Amino acid sequence: MSNCILIALDWGTTNVRAALLDSNGNVLDERRGESGVGQFNRQQFEDNFDHLTKDWPNVPAIAAGMVGSRQGWMEAQYLPVPCDIDLLSNSLVSFEYNTRQITIVPGLKLDNGKRFDVMRGEETQLAGFLANQSGFTGTIIMPGTHSKWVRLVNGRITSFQTYMTGEFFDAVSEHTILRHSVSDHTGPDSLFAEKVNTLASGSGSIEGELFGLRARHLLEECDAGRLRQELSALLIMAELRAGQLDGFELNENVVLVGTETLTVFYETALEALGCNPQKFKGTALVWPALFDLALKAKLIEGPSA
Amino acid sequence: MSNCILIALDWGTTNVRAALLDSNGNVLDERRGESGVGQFNRQQFEDNFDHLTKDWPNVPAIAAGMVGSRQGWMEAQYLPVPCDIDLLSNSLVSFEYNTRQITIVPGLKLDNGKRFDVMRGEETQLAGFLANQSGFTGTIIMPGTHSKWVRLVNGRITSFQTYMTGEFFDAVSEHTILRHSVSDHTGPDSLFAEKVNTLASGSGSIEGELFGLRARHLLEECDAGRLRQELSALLIMAELRAGQLDGFELNENVVLVGTETLTVFYETALEALGCNPQKFKGTALVWPALFDLALKAKLIEGPSA
Repeated sequence: MSNCILIALDWGTTNVRAALLDSNGNVLDERRGESGVGQFNRQQFEDNFDHLTKDWPNVPAIAAGMVGSRQGWMEAQYLPVPCDIDLLSNSLVSFEYNTRQITIVPGLKLDNGKRFDVMRGEETQLAGFLANQSGFTGTIIMPGTHSKWVRLVNGRITSFQTYMTGEFFDAVSEHTILRHSVSDHTGPDSLFAEKVNTLASGSGSIEGELFGLRARHLLEECDAGRLRQELSALLIMAELRAGQLDGFELNENVVLVGTETLTVFYETALEALGCNPQKFKGTALVWPALFDLALKAKLIEGPSA
Repeated sequence: MSNCILIALDWGTTNVRAALLDSNGNVLDERRGESGVGQFNRQQFEDNFDHLTKDWPNVPAIAAGMVGSRQGWMEAQYLPVPCDIDLLSNSLVSFEYNTRQITIVPGLKLDNGKRFDVMRGEETQLAGFLANQSGFTGTIIMPGTHSKWVRLVNGRITSFQTYMTGEFFDAVSEHTILRHSVSDHTGPDSLFAEKVNTLASGSGSIEGELFGLRARHLLEECDAGRLRQELSALLIMAELRAGQLDGFELNENVVLVGTETLTVFYETALEALGCNPQKFKGTALVWPALFDLALKAKLIEGPSA
């Protein structure tokens, strides 16, 4: 493979994706593996890296995500928010492993003495998004296990907030009495849309609706697929209500960044609130962002003009 | 044992308590055992009853709680709300087992086509409370795994609502990333009081505060006992906010019915909202209520005057 100049790694809590890039940032090869964050010691991270990049050339590597946490391969201290995303390229942490330069992207933290928050991995997707919309003002919503809401003003990150919606969904649907009531589903259906619309125009609490799902199941024997759609609707609308309480505006630019499946749920819920978000696939933003960071930090040289 | 006239059973999801009562409703003996609801078949419920009441005289028995659910010993159909609590004594379900009359107290249901809710067991505590405050108007809050809020007008139950706060607490503290941050505790301390006061005067979302607990733990290494107090504060305040959104008034009579440990948490949180609730121990209301129901339904005869 000629012209390979960079290995990029999207190294999260559960999985790691690795890509071999050429001097234009094109993907020549891509692989997946287990993360090991929280379980591996340094030697095991090295072995995992060797396994993932077997037979790839000895070029620099750059990694984003939980791999840079205290339980990761090498800690990269959080960059404090508010900040410009360009600061990421000045705050990379590099070390040498096996005659190769390995570079880790830091996460972001918010700590104003009252509010505390952290992210790792999403900052790289943000960098990828801002590469094409550098002066963006608005709200980026990144749905997931831990949804991140990011406020941007003229391309600068002014604040962010995490909602544990995906993790609540799992905890509630697997570890509470609602586990008897919900089944699997893949995307939002008309019941989801109906429920988010009802909630958008209603005034009651979402907490009160949750046990109602179970009670209706007892009283009416209604179908488990329906209840799962409604549980998704309740938890996602709770997140959207919380985001608004926390000062995020839904009547200006709103952008969803995430998997196609999840962003469709959020798009439907946002539409019920009169908001029409743009959508971006989060993983598609990572390789261009890491390539760009590697260029800016002069880990690699760009394409010869 | 002379003068024993009734066996009363408080038969919940996890445990069962049994009491032998005399003709004045005094407790002569009390025992505890496993519930079996959801696991036992009819024969096993009979065996469990025999085991619990071994050597007690062959007097009628009356039971409240999940024992009357579809997965219990004998189903007692829910009584629809709004209703007077006196209706309970007209809606008991009786059957004969081993030459003995066994009577089950029904639960309550709310089903107005929009909202669905159920309770089993708490209706008996309500009956016990109303026996001494028959014309009560206000809100009864019964904290627990599934907290019940009950609206009463002139002693009549007009509505109720379940919040899954206790179950959320367990799900969140055992099955999410916050499990790394929280430790055990027994009662509310000054950190709990501080947090509920901050939340009472704040405008942000509670959802947004949850991940903040984890983030602060990462950024500041603060102590796990503190985080558990704050998690309790967040979830209880979320319940209190939800109750108000759902139309319950906290600026009139508010009564807490539950265990001493839990009611102290709720009392502290309610005080932060300017509300001073009365407190009653829930289990202490059950034997008098069952004795009273047995009298009203003429399962037993009262004390000779």
